[in-house]
Amino acid sequence: MKRIMLTVAYDGTNYNGWQFQPNGRTIEEELNRALSELFEEKIIVIGASRTDTGVHALSNIAVFDTEGYIPPHKVSYALNQRLPDEIRIKKSEEVPLDFHPRKVKTKKTYEYHIVSEEFPNPLKRLYAHYTYYQMDVDLMKQAAAYLEGEHDFKSFCSSGSTAKTTTRTIYHVDVTRNGSEIIIGIQGNGFLYNMVRIIAGTLMEIGRGIYPPQYMEEIIEGRDRSLAGPTAPARGLVLVDFEFLEEL
Amino acid sequence: MKRIMLTVAYDGTNYNGWQFQPNGRTIEEELNRALSELFEEKIIVIGASRTDTGVHALSNIAVFDTEGYIPPHKVSYALNQRLPDEIRIKKSEEVPLDFHPRKVKTKKTYEYHIVSEEFPNPLKRLYAHYTYYQMDVDLMKQAAAYLEGEHDFKSFCSSGSTAKTTTRTIYHVDVTRNGSEIIIGIQGNGFLYNMVRIIAGTLMEIGRGIYPPQYMEEIIEGRDRSLAGPTAPARGLVLVDFEFLEEL
Repeated sequence: MKRIMLTVAYDGTNYNGWQFQPNGRTIEEELNRALSELFEEKIIVIGASRTDTGVHALSNIAVFDTEGYIPPHKVSYALNQRLPDEIRIKKSEEVPLDFHPRKVKTKKTYEYHIVSEEFPNPLKRLYAHYTYYQMDVDLMKQAAAYLEGEHDFKSFCSSGSTAKTTTRTIYHVDVTRNGSEIIIGIQGNGFLYNMVRIIAGTLMEIGRGIYPPQYMEEIIEGRDRSLAGPTAPARGLVLVDFEFLEEL
Repeated sequence: MKRIMLTVAYDGTNYNGWQFQPNGRTIEEELNRALSELFEEKIIVIGASRTDTGVHALSNIAVFDTEGYIPPHKVSYALNQRLPDEIRIKKSEEVPLDFHPRKVKTKKTYEYHIVSEEFPNPLKRLYAHYTYYQMDVDLMKQAAAYLEGEHDFKSFCSSGSTAKTTTRTIYHVDVTRNGSEIIIGIQGNGFLYNMVRIIAGTLMEIGRGIYPPQYMEEIIEGRDRSLAGPTAPARGLVLVDFEFLEEL
């Protein structure tokens, strides 16, 4: 018996998120199907981050166990032949049998992509949130700085979350502009349900000048979802990196 | 009677090109349908560039005539409500009744996008050609310089072209790298059937070191399609700009 870890990239546009569900295609379901075909045994993966409907990833993690003889580093090639173009395995490697990707300390990096210009460019529509409004990136940067560190992020958590605690640590947030595209990069030890999208929605309101940057501090301290901005659409969100801080 | 000019952007992924055809969706067909609904009369557009299946545009041109009363500059808003997200009208304006977009001198700019990295990023798959091979951009630039000026581009023309002459003027070609993405930008007074994609296919072979940059000169002088490289895939091609050199 071997445990194999996959690093998975996907375009989430046409998927109902990561986690298996009875109706609608999911990333997990495609991986289970392709792996079960490849190894000729029933395989069910364990995912590190159960991304929502429409969210993208450049680096999500899944592990599975097999009795099969395919060398672990070659699984990625064989699996890519059996997956749709929208899902690509970047890497496959053996990990210890007791390694569970949701039970180790991690550092996750997300990006939220916004396109702010006069007309919506159809070539950017799938991987960024389009807005007609102009954004002041400096105001967004000032507001983002309040998020760094260990805080109770209850204001940035959608109802329906089952998290035991709403305290998380954000290591770093940056807001950069590249032409008409604005990218919010955010790195933390874990994120609450919809947390990055609510942060993005709040930063966009601050970027438009609806609230001053200092209001971010009040939102955090208020511990109340209604203080923060709207949940930004899924299409702008990409899970870009996943690091395990404890040695495997 | 008024003639109105539209500047049209589109994601060509799911379209059988610009020009109306009995089977398969086309950009022209969507425009004709949306305009006819909007003006409540049968409208057929005249396009400036009949792009191929799968090719994208940020700025293609179409004109049509109408007896309708909608102010020309407001047609774009009304039309965007009736078009799929993949097609966006950037601008609408009145032009003289004798203006024909294929019968005036133009300067067209195309970009060909290549992603060269170890694994195919699913978020770039629709708008760039992916290659595992590494490319030497300096070699590509040297080769591209031979294309500038007035030449007989017969070697870069697919069979099936109905052009009267294969002489065209390329004003400028540049090859730039942005991380793993390589962009070939090319500006000219007109292009033969598949010309930009054959140029891209040839530059990629030179970038991989299969032929030296000087071979580009031989290809041009040979006036023989079999000397040039393969036709690069449609998904990497974008019509980015369209300028009319004669005053409207």
